[in-house]
Amino acid sequence: MTAGEPDTGLARAARLACRRDASRPTASMAPGFTQCNMISLPRDWAWDFLLYAQRNPKPCPVLDVTDPGSHRTALAPDADLRTDIPLYRVWHDGVLAEETPDATKAWVEHPDLVTFLIGCSFTFESSLQRAGIEMRHIAQGRNVPMFLTGRDCRPAGRLHGRLVVSMRPIPAGRVAEAVTISARTPAVHGAPVHVGAPAELGIRDLAQPDFGDPVDIRAGEVPVFWACGVTPQAALMASRPPFAITHAPGHMFITDIPDTNWQV
Amino acid sequence: MTAGEPDTGLARAARLACRRDASRPTASMAPGFTQCNMISLPRDWAWDFLLYAQRNPKPCPVLDVTDPGSHRTALAPDADLRTDIPLYRVWHDGVLAEETPDATKAWVEHPDLVTFLIGCSFTFESSLQRAGIEMRHIAQGRNVPMFLTGRDCRPAGRLHGRLVVSMRPIPAGRVAEAVTISARTPAVHGAPVHVGAPAELGIRDLAQPDFGDPVDIRAGEVPVFWACGVTPQAALMASRPPFAITHAPGHMFITDIPDTNWQV
Repeated sequence: MTAGEPDTGLARAARLACRRDASRPTASMAPGFTQCNMISLPRDWAWDFLLYAQRNPKPCPVLDVTDPGSHRTALAPDADLRTDIPLYRVWHDGVLAEETPDATKAWVEHPDLVTFLIGCSFTFESSLQRAGIEMRHIAQGRNVPMFLTGRDCRPAGRLHGRLVVSMRPIPAGRVAEAVTISARTPAVHGAPVHVGAPAELGIRDLAQPDFGDPVDIRAGEVPVFWACGVTPQAALMASRPPFAITHAPGHMFITDIPDTNWQV
Repeated sequence: MTAGEPDTGLARAARLACRRDASRPTASMAPGFTQCNMISLPRDWAWDFLLYAQRNPKPCPVLDVTDPGSHRTALAPDADLRTDIPLYRVWHDGVLAEETPDATKAWVEHPDLVTFLIGCSFTFESSLQRAGIEMRHIAQGRNVPMFLTGRDCRPAGRLHGRLVVSMRPIPAGRVAEAVTISARTPAVHGAPVHVGAPAELGIRDLAQPDFGDPVDIRAGEVPVFWACGVTPQAALMASRPPFAITHAPGHMFITDIPDTNWQV
């Protein structure tokens, strides 16, 4: 943190609110700070996952990896990864077993978990908003809509699965700006993977997202699709590791790292 | 590969020349194609290395990882990683044991090697040259000068070591362009880590590089330092894994991937 960067107290306060309060999506919380997807896997699966992320960097840009069993991250030294995400998902054999605001118990039962924190497109939303591009899900108070596409990711070891994307409707005249602004932050998904033509991605109905909530798409707007950090959850469902903890889609881990850190 | 991209035949021809002929640095060979650093480690060390790379993405941007024992890469499907680099280094317990143009024998003796291909700053040199910025080491027919800095990388498991940088003298009036052009390709080291003031990096004498050759620095030129894919070799020397194969500094693996692939 250097002079001119936002006060990390905002990020800490947001994490404490997530730790204490009822769960809600984190879009627009602690604006200016990087948000992350999370996936915790048994140590035996960590190599496969890190390789899966390396082979699929658009949906799985890894920002930090913990030591086995640790619930601390360099991205927010005072945070507790067991409690500071508003809503967790616990997975058994690739099946969602539970959603919970506190994952401490699951961590106790699985003491060798390696946790991966993965970039999130919420990170560049503040840049898009500063450019005057409305984020419809924020304006409508909803979770961002996310879709399981028909595109396979490149497999790694025992892990395979399809690409998940988030969708934001953008006025046709602002699509180029949305592309160039998000492209500046490749570590948090970067430029869109697809603009328009959802059927080409295998998406049948934009009103029925696989994760999150539908949002309104107005006349003259184009659906723009960014690679999404829920992609690891699709890999869990397809590949069935014995155990995992993730964030619930849209309910992210808020770090102390300014969004601007990722600009190239 | 799509229309308008360079002919991969140039990259194949360069690899075959490296396979057959006497070794020489690969800067300016097959212009327009991505060049890579290589490090092969026993499977038992692969997790530590992939984590080291994730924690130090400027010097260690991983572009591909092979399956254990494989000498094939998705970056150049017809290449043979055992022979297609002009000069290899074989390491025992962190000590350089041998330099050889053919690593086939070392591979036979160590059948579980996992190979990492890491982005190289040679990849953006053609962009700098197109902008009219001379690459002094190419103009002088030398290997690029590389320096071991005093900066520690973030450790991972058993791996630790200091940052290695490559240096190019740039006219003061072109430094900003050299920064912005290289910044567009973060997957191949991206923007410089340091401009001017070599003593701040712990570099005492620009005429005595730790790897490669010295180059002339003329009046009005500033030494510009980019993170370098020889950093893993510094980690080998410091961390002493039982066995490793790497490229020799400046003698890179030439891929079929156009340089433009990495532009954001």
